[in-house]
Amino acid sequence: MQIKIMQNVLQANEKKAAEIRTLLQQKKIFMLNLISSPGSGKTTLLEKTLPLLKEKYKVAVIEGDVETDKDARRLEKYGVPIALINTNGACHLESVSIEKAFSALDMDNLDLIFVENVGNLVCPAEFDIGEDAKVAILSTPEGDDKPMKYPLLFREATLVILNKTDLLEYVDFSLPNFYADIKKLKSDLPVIEAACKTNLGIDKWVEWLEAQIAKKKAR
Amino acid sequence: MQIKIMQNVLQANEKKAAEIRTLLQQKKIFMLNLISSPGSGKTTLLEKTLPLLKEKYKVAVIEGDVETDKDARRLEKYGVPIALINTNGACHLESVSIEKAFSALDMDNLDLIFVENVGNLVCPAEFDIGEDAKVAILSTPEGDDKPMKYPLLFREATLVILNKTDLLEYVDFSLPNFYADIKKLKSDLPVIEAACKTNLGIDKWVEWLEAQIAKKKAR
Repeated sequence: MQIKIMQNVLQANEKKAAEIRTLLQQKKIFMLNLISSPGSGKTTLLEKTLPLLKEKYKVAVIEGDVETDKDARRLEKYGVPIALINTNGACHLESVSIEKAFSALDMDNLDLIFVENVGNLVCPAEFDIGEDAKVAILSTPEGDDKPMKYPLLFREATLVILNKTDLLEYVDFSLPNFYADIKKLKSDLPVIEAACKTNLGIDKWVEWLEAQIAKKKAR
Repeated sequence: MQIKIMQNVLQANEKKAAEIRTLLQQKKIFMLNLISSPGSGKTTLLEKTLPLLKEKYKVAVIEGDVETDKDARRLEKYGVPIALINTNGACHLESVSIEKAFSALDMDNLDLIFVENVGNLVCPAEFDIGEDAKVAILSTPEGDDKPMKYPLLFREATLVILNKTDLLEYVDFSLPNFYADIKKLKSDLPVIEAACKTNLGIDKWVEWLEAQIAKKKAR
């Protein structure tokens, strides 16, 4: 009985996600779903990225947070539209919330939407929100065993950002083990090594984003 | 309608949790629910703790994991009984799983049960499993803003372990901000500063555990 209910919730979510995907295709907007544990660096990545993109592209952020506006406030100063979704305790965003957030954005005037999902390595990977790509962010202090322990996200992801590589010498994280596991989970999954704090890897990430936006426009 | 279903699930969970609590009281077993993000150091904390306690107390571990036995295997060598619960995608443990795990343990011959919950800062805090205390583990690379962003866990916790304090000089983490927020959330919440890798704080943690076990025996 419980499983049946869960399937209905997932089916309703997927139906709405498909509608969102169709809308994004019509409007030629590329939408990213950023997923990681709390504190892996999602917001910091956006803080580094928004200034580099906002002159060239029309960018918006949908900010998912359990109950505060802390992350939305951190991004306020970059002058891009931000739609905040407070989930009131829920551990992931669903497509119905994304649709609501769209009503707060000028959808005829956007190239790129970043969705910063709730900090959680498990549930957000299970809920399609109609995004073009999921980006998994893992930081080195979390340990190299995380892809195998939370495989769904890494199988679902289009890109992995390995963040806080500036801490590699202080933490237990084996790059060879990490890459071997990623290869086992999804052999062609690209990884960008980054340290958002020191701007390492941000150039590659922006290059990847620009290629995705161009592809979406050409579709 | 969805909210109503959720309430039923929570009610069923709480009913079972109350039964577990009664059983633990009868058997004078102290049970801890360890909650943190992936990679904060729950398993490492247990690796440091089990050798110090297992001669003096009868200890068992209930290991919650989404789909692997990686953490259970890490603890195998310490020679205490381990019951592994794979949640098959679910992001938290519920009391019905704990009851099942009990059937794999010798409940007449235990002083202390550690439950290592699924790595997740959100959902495990919402589900009572009949434990005597929730222990929140936060590691410094996750950032000092986490208590305010995930307040439920810190309000529910009996103790906080601030782990990876050996990394404080390399990460953005303000101890004064952290303590100010903890005070706002729950003014009397004790914090143990630790660095499991270098054994810092393990003595205080073991002292706290021994006091809890003694209290439970005396109740």
